[in-house]
Amino acid sequence: VRVIDLNCDMGESFGRWRLGADDVVLPLVSSANIACGFHAGDPLTMVATVRDATRHGVVIGAHPGLPDLLGFGRRHLAIAPDETYAYIVTQVGALMGAVQAAGTRLHHVKLHGAMTVVVETSEEHAAAAVQAILDTAPEPRLYWRAAPVPDPFSDEARRRGVEVVLEMYPDLVYAPDGHLAPPARGEFAVLDQAIEQVRRALSDGEVLTSAGAPVGIEFSSICVHGDSAEALDIVRASGCTIAAPGANANGERAA
Amino acid sequence: VRVIDLNCDMGESFGRWRLGADDVVLPLVSSANIACGFHAGDPLTMVATVRDATRHGVVIGAHPGLPDLLGFGRRHLAIAPDETYAYIVTQVGALMGAVQAAGTRLHHVKLHGAMTVVVETSEEHAAAAVQAILDTAPEPRLYWRAAPVPDPFSDEARRRGVEVVLEMYPDLVYAPDGHLAPPARGEFAVLDQAIEQVRRALSDGEVLTSAGAPVGIEFSSICVHGDSAEALDIVRASGCTIAAPGANANGERAA
Amino acid sequence: VRVIDLNCDMGESFGRWRLGADDVVLPLVSSANIACGFHAGDPLTMVATVRDATRHGVVIGAHPGLPDLLGFGRRHLAIAPDETYAYIVTQVGALMGAVQAAGTRLHHVKLHGAMTVVVETSEEHAAAAVQAILDTAPEPRLYWRAAPVPDPFSDEARRRGVEVVLEMYPDLVYAPDGHLAPPARGEFAVLDQAIEQVRRALSDGEVLTSAGAPVGIEFSSICVHGDSAEALDIVRASGCTIAAPGANANGERAA
Amino acid sequence: VRVIDLNCDMGESFGRWRLGADDVVLPLVSSANIACGFHAGDPLTMVATVRDATRHGVVIGAHPGLPDLLGFGRRHLAIAPDETYAYIVTQVGALMGAVQAAGTRLHHVKLHGAMTVVVETSEEHAAAAVQAILDTAPEPRLYWRAAPVPDPFSDEARRRGVEVVLEMYPDLVYAPDGHLAPPARGEFAVLDQAIEQVRRALSDGEVLTSAGAPVGIEFSSICVHGDSAEALDIVRASGCTIAAPGANANGERAA
Repeated sequence: VRVIDLNCDMGESFGRWRLGADDVVLPLVSSANIACGFHAGDPLTMVATVRDATRHGVVIGAHPGLPDLLGFGRRHLAIAPDETYAYIVTQVGALMGAVQAAGTRLHHVKLHGAMTVVVETSEEHAAAAVQAILDTAPEPRLYWRAAPVPDPFSDEARRRGVEVVLEMYPDLVYAPDGHLAPPARGEFAVLDQAIEQVRRALSDGEVLTSAGAPVGIEFSSICVHGDSAEALDIVRASGCTIAAPGANANGERAA
Repeated sequence: VRVIDLNCDMGESFGRWRLGADDVVLPLVSSANIACGFHAGDPLTMVATVRDATRHGVVIGAHPGLPDLLGFGRRHLAIAPDETYAYIVTQVGALMGAVQAAGTRLHHVKLHGAMTVVVETSEEHAAAAVQAILDTAPEPRLYWRAAPVPDPFSDEARRRGVEVVLEMYPDLVYAPDGHLAPPARGEFAVLDQAIEQVRRALSDGEVLTSAGAPVGIEFSSICVHGDSAEALDIVRASGCTIAAPGANANGERAA
Repeated sequence: VRVIDLNCDMGESFGRWRLGADDVVLPLVSSANIACGFHAGDPLTMVATVRDATRHGVVIGAHPGLPDLLGFGRRHLAIAPDETYAYIVTQVGALMGAVQAAGTRLHHVKLHGAMTVVVETSEEHAAAAVQAILDTAPEPRLYWRAAPVPDPFSDEARRRGVEVVLEMYPDLVYAPDGHLAPPARGEFAVLDQAIEQVRRALSDGEVLTSAGAPVGIEFSSICVHGDSAEALDIVRASGCTIAAPGANANGERAA
Repeated sequence: VRVIDLNCDMGESFGRWRLGADDVVLPLVSSANIACGFHAGDPLTMVATVRDATRHGVVIGAHPGLPDLLGFGRRHLAIAPDETYAYIVTQVGALMGAVQAAGTRLHHVKLHGAMTVVVETSEEHAAAAVQAILDTAPEPRLYWRAAPVPDPFSDEARRRGVEVVLEMYPDLVYAPDGHLAPPARGEFAVLDQAIEQVRRALSDGEVLTSAGAPVGIEFSSICVHGDSAEALDIVRASGCTIAAPGANANGERAA
């Protein structure tokens, strides 16, 4: 039985608007990616989520996104490399404020939504994002989707000294070119196929692409979506053991 | 000749909108209070202002305000104590991101605009603000207006272990009750009276209230407004020597 | 059996964040107060809510609030009278855009949250708000809480030619001074007492204050909160008949 | 001497941040494109700019943009067609509120910044934008850049019944493919070449592309940038007569 890190996006409420079931999910995962106020999250939510995660021994990641509350940071925005840098620096900083206030530490950085696309638009954007992580994260560590194809961004991060934790997504479909997408309506029997996708990935180290071909995939974390309770069932059903809350990606507890 | 710290609010531009003459003022002052994005400032501006201040040896303060871009943080907003806490924690954090990225350190925290009124509305708000500074600032130090009357907020900060640097305002009018206000139209010949106000404060340790009575005032910094070039002339004309950029409030250079 | 207008705040979602059960409530009420983007609501939501209300024959009110998404427009913000005017003018205008696009008409204006407090802070604010309604609403009509005490704001509106529709709140507690407040924890058995409050108000034209004394109240609409399904049960249980969707406050259908 | 409409973007201040010299420019132009709060402008500015334009007899256009204050609406944002529609509907509506309050009328709509790129990304976006103008503007009229090449968006607008007023830009460079761009550093002696560009356009109906070839161009308005005083000198030096403030694109006064 493989022990594996389970990460989940959290702290995505904004003011009166609640999103996600953070209190249900927190006791079950080992890592939380916490929104930093640009695409979701607000100061109260950031402070409270960091506190709650700390209380549950869940390690904390900053989850910076694009400054687009209206679009939840999911719409591509043509920012410049120095904006990529500054947006990550100030968001990681803002969460670090909450992290310090809670007397804990920042474990990793994970880019949100269309910010992941931005860093793939050019080498300058990739370099800016990596530099921002190096300049602000006490332990430069990036969570990034595992892909069965060459991946310039995580390569650049690794080359510059950032530890990269690759994540597997149970409920997304792997395109033949390695990109991930939400299942098209009807294409993907989420529950069953997701369980099967995790099981195969864990046992054989491969996923089936949407074209039906198996491709190899390496990962040390599984990312679930907190607003679907099924996500956790999927992971459990797949037969792996979720790392103890607070454990790192290798199943070891954080210091 | 007294050597004294000169501080100025900076980094108050937002996106395409420029405010202040930061490049003119930076070489002349010893401390910069940098906006953190809630009432003014944006990620690019924060990163650039921190860098420029560092280059000029000017020490850096975080200048958190109310989340009211439209009102520049100057309109009272009835927030709760836990919001006061979270707003300061995340803003100081965001600026800390830029500070760390520039390889420098955070010298102090100064509250902006109506946030200064918020912390005076109740003991809970005061305590929340002080706690936020203690929880995030590596060297808990508050810039706060010197007042010729008892001042519960700075007393609370001092009592809890925050160093308080009291500031004198050359171009504001001291009311008999110790509050400061912009001069009413015609009431205050800014240039002449401001020079006189600084001179008297430096030499005799007192200011004249708007009622004409002298009251004692203690301070170790002078706050000038960066958008008025006269501000600096005022200080120079008053006969004091501005601390070397990068010097602390006692005229000693920061480590 | 009295036929009465039932109004409900709607369109309070923002981007990915959903709030309220508009699709459930729309078929049951006769008037919708639709958020205009300052405290809640966004362009897509405004356009869709106006369309849905129109489809159900529910008359449409603009529901302008303070520019405070983070606080849902519920925190007092010290704006100036010309800001009160401009905030209402542009919010009513924005909703009018959606109203015109749907080929329908604007029935009324209802102020949201702390904006209702702002217009009570001074005669200037009251005058500014009334003028804004007169300047933009094709049929100047205001929804406003019925109070068992003299009410300067609605008096001013009426005096200036704005039709005032007074609303009764089933689930709020009437203080002896006429102000309404959410029930304190345990003070108010919402379901039972709310039914009783509506029943008494409809049959006897009075409410019991929190001090237990009956005071007279006149109203021609009942305001329910869309996020609590009980609200509608309360009204039904009270024995009145809700005006047909699209009916005005007198139970007559809108032209 | 040709009499021609001169239009200028206005109302681009936001809160305390001032932009443009609206008071200087307003007496000199015949049409104002007023920001609607998404990329620039705020309620006070919208109301005041509409009033000032009305006082000077300058006709008023709504100038909707992308919801990106931080980027001044100049960065491409990947919105969906229904967002294009809703963003234009609510922005035109918001300005209409100010227009109605000033007792005047809306003359035209002009898209701002990257919103002009959005409507060129697909037929769906173009149709959505045209529909939004038809659904909200009392006189459906679009200001759009004149191009020496086929232009699908203005064709679609015209085909659907929107009057299109084509504008010539004195201080932009025409690429061989018809696109306009700010002059590269040194490429364009703004003052002289701009005067020459307007002169040639007015007399010969053509511009020189950056490749040096003359191409025909038809237009009935000239767009100047309000933050450069030279813009007006350019137009005057070109020998044309600016339409009287309040005149329409044909030099006739608005009703």
